[in-house]
Amino acid sequence: MTRVSFQGERGAYSEGAARRFFGEHIDVVPCRSFKEAMADAASGNTDHAILPVENSIEGNVGESYDLLHSTSLNVTGEINYPIRHCLIGTGSLDGIESVYSHPQALGQCRRFIEGRRMKPIAYYDTAGSVKKIRDMQDPSAACIASRDASSIYGIPIIRTDIADNPDNYTRFLALSTTRCGPSERDKTSIIFSVKHESGALFRAIRHFHDNGINLTKIESRPNKTSIWEYNFYVDFDGHESDPIVRGILEAMKGETVFLKVLGSYPAAR
Amino acid sequence: MTRVSFQGERGAYSEGAARRFFGEHIDVVPCRSFKEAMADAASGNTDHAILPVENSIEGNVGESYDLLHSTSLNVTGEINYPIRHCLIGTGSLDGIESVYSHPQALGQCRRFIEGRRMKPIAYYDTAGSVKKIRDMQDPSAACIASRDASSIYGIPIIRTDIADNPDNYTRFLALSTTRCGPSERDKTSIIFSVKHESGALFRAIRHFHDNGINLTKIESRPNKTSIWEYNFYVDFDGHESDPIVRGILEAMKGETVFLKVLGSYPAAR
Repeated sequence: MTRVSFQGERGAYSEGAARRFFGEHIDVVPCRSFKEAMADAASGNTDHAILPVENSIEGNVGESYDLLHSTSLNVTGEINYPIRHCLIGTGSLDGIESVYSHPQALGQCRRFIEGRRMKPIAYYDTAGSVKKIRDMQDPSAACIASRDASSIYGIPIIRTDIADNPDNYTRFLALSTTRCGPSERDKTSIIFSVKHESGALFRAIRHFHDNGINLTKIESRPNKTSIWEYNFYVDFDGHESDPIVRGILEAMKGETVFLKVLGSYPAAR
Repeated sequence: MTRVSFQGERGAYSEGAARRFFGEHIDVVPCRSFKEAMADAASGNTDHAILPVENSIEGNVGESYDLLHSTSLNVTGEINYPIRHCLIGTGSLDGIESVYSHPQALGQCRRFIEGRRMKPIAYYDTAGSVKKIRDMQDPSAACIASRDASSIYGIPIIRTDIADNPDNYTRFLALSTTRCGPSERDKTSIIFSVKHESGALFRAIRHFHDNGINLTKIESRPNKTSIWEYNFYVDFDGHESDPIVRGILEAMKGETVFLKVLGSYPAAR
């Protein structure tokens, strides 16, 4: 059976994304950190790791991008997974006084929480907060997590879709030691850094424009060795085996100080 | 006396940045959130707000960028403030068992904490964790915060410079209702969004390149109305009153769906 490692407790949104992508019949391996989930896949303990890289409201997951910089794994797929926060607890809606969850989930449900004068309490993990509520046995306490977490821990959903903004998606990458061949519609993810001089980023990305290749994403992260210098994370349409893409990557080598192809993979629908 | 609002408790790094920028003899107004600190300056309750936008290790502060999008305040200055984490407590180094601080500060001192087998405990604020330690009166507990926080709350520094990476700076922006005239060496910060079509970002930024204007920073943030569409935050060399810069901004108007000049200000040394 396919084994997939992810960060979080059972019932985390990452587990949902893994099942959506690889199918319901997988062995999931919960890990304490992104780093551990990736190390599991790199060592062969699991076949794949699933990693959140960006949320449509909160923006990029900095830690994930930093780990992609040094990983030996390849990107083999992407999934845009809907985040649907539920209020979960043993009490009734009117009796809830405090609500536990990850600070990001609490922030995304702020209007609901404030409108009902509940006290938000930060917890390390959404799914972990369901475990906490199970152990507390206090009907005035509830938590915010996924529908899956409710059913895994056997704690009822009090209200579904409590987020301020219902259009809430997280983009996950699938990672493994293999690489993907071309499909009908591929994307490629790369990381690069440029010399610290005027126009260097512009010159690096103009190759895409000059060759009619669309950039779908550009993200910068501190490079952590020199202050205010950056690594750039770019996604673009096309497969690394395509002759045009190969030409671009070859030309970029002369203008970057670091260039890594994370992988080519079928674009999410 | 100049009044400056900032997010955090007294002794926060933001207060240190405010004093470094505006001078020691200012009235500081601690606020519960970035939003409140900015509202204070916008309403005239304070003369300036100081806002962290980026850390040299952790990357951008997403919430700050989102607030800049909607603020009526102008950017009037920038400061790169050194973050120097200290271990603060009433006990001795060998007796410390648990250490409180903001999760980011705990993360930045991971090697120190793990090397000494201390238990890290997340707290909402670095300076607030010093208050907590003062109230706990437990010599086996310590916290991580600034030198200023140690002296404000009267709790001794046990060890200075405990961060894994000593090169740790946070870039703050100064915000006020006024605008700055030109100086010898200015920067300008803008926000814009482009049509969701191939090459749109490239066409918007090529004006800078074609006019020999150096971009010092480019950051993307979800625009929160359409999924996977972005606002771009760009800093560049030059003042908005400079004829070349005015020409670029004029040309960009035709190619962007939103364009806001946050302000021009003297570049930090």
